[in-house]
Amino acid sequence: MELFYHPNPEKGVFAAEESKHIAKVLRYEIGDRIALTNGKGTRFSGRVTDNNFLALKFQVESQHTAEPLKPAINLIVAPLKHQDRMEWLVEKVVEIGVANIYFWPTQRAEKQKPKLERFEKIAISAIKQSKQDWLPKIALIGSLSDVPLATINLIAHLEEGTENRTIPSQLSNKPESINVLIGPEGDFTQQEINQALALKYQAVTLGTNVLRTETAAMVACASIRQHYFTVGN
Amino acid sequence: MELFYHPNPEKGVFAAEESKHIAKVLRYEIGDRIALTNGKGTRFSGRVTDNNFLALKFQVESQHTAEPLKPAINLIVAPLKHQDRMEWLVEKVVEIGVANIYFWPTQRAEKQKPKLERFEKIAISAIKQSKQDWLPKIALIGSLSDVPLATINLIAHLEEGTENRTIPSQLSNKPESINVLIGPEGDFTQQEINQALALKYQAVTLGTNVLRTETAAMVACASIRQHYFTVGN
Repeated sequence: MELFYHPNPEKGVFAAEESKHIAKVLRYEIGDRIALTNGKGTRFSGRVTDNNFLALKFQVESQHTAEPLKPAINLIVAPLKHQDRMEWLVEKVVEIGVANIYFWPTQRAEKQKPKLERFEKIAISAIKQSKQDWLPKIALIGSLSDVPLATINLIAHLEEGTENRTIPSQLSNKPESINVLIGPEGDFTQQEINQALALKYQAVTLGTNVLRTETAAMVACASIRQHYFTVGN
Repeated sequence: MELFYHPNPEKGVFAAEESKHIAKVLRYEIGDRIALTNGKGTRFSGRVTDNNFLALKFQVESQHTAEPLKPAINLIVAPLKHQDRMEWLVEKVVEIGVANIYFWPTQRAEKQKPKLERFEKIAISAIKQSKQDWLPKIALIGSLSDVPLATINLIAHLEEGTENRTIPSQLSNKPESINVLIGPEGDFTQQEINQALALKYQAVTLGTNVLRTETAAMVACASIRQHYFTVGN
């Protein structure tokens, strides 16, 4: 069953764009069952009461609240040069399941500003697609210290000193949250690595293949999520 | 250092398109060091002897052969509707490191033929990017039994009966090869699942989030690769 997003399902009516999609493209009719998430953990179930193309109305019949995925994964990543690769990154890590995405403009990263509004739309689409009830937050940070430390804090970089410290080898049982830091093409500067290490980030490696930034981010998040799915946290 | 691809480095000369890129865009000059892979496991190192835009020549000075990544991952995946999503899939799993990609047109998959030549170009670009010496093979199969069984054979499907059988939980130590089967949007048919189970494929789950086909393929390959990178196979 299709899942829709509505920030305030209590209002009982969709805005024009979504109304048109539900009524005209998906052809929902009065009385049809409809499922919504508010992106803040609650799933609503109800029925369409008016399939107006401009203001589709619905009546909520039941709701339940879901726990966020544990551990919370906070991805901290350098902005990319190519907008499409950055959009792909957002879509994929949201599908996999993250709590926060922070774009950190590191010294060797691209200078253009990430389009946060566009990314939020992609994230909404991805939680609908993957049937999740928590919408990840996406933000631009000025400094690494803007991000609160997590239970486990990892930095994947290409400098010496990460040998055999893979992500799975650094994962303890049942952490509340994990920060994972992925650098730009050209890697972090030594100064940035030192700053992260001083903040107690652990250096890890993603293997012998040289991964693009967006691939590294996806691999790190997938590997963490699959690990904890396995140990059943 | 940039890595180039040449199917037959013994010839000592690049075709026009690659010559133009190396000489004109990257501005390689006579005497510059150059690194090439033949995609069949051998890395060549040499120097440019003629930076002609149409036929760049080089002299090989040394070569060494690399072992393929172990275990060999053979991805078997249903063709997707969107060409761009299929291209992403190829690029990302090649970066992560696979031996073979087989497109299997399952009953619920899109009917259009995968563009294998285009995918090969993407795969070449991805091994150059990720500094690998083995070019994965990409093929279209008619039946699942066209793919030789591996040491471990996995099928990720959405039907009942995969609870808690995650990919990491099904990975034994030091397999030679792993087949992993990823279904189309709409999943495999029960008949296809039965066929795979009869061939001794083990059913696995990728977690509670509903992943798009291309995401599922990348998550599966990433999770296998990170697992064995950890145990040092």
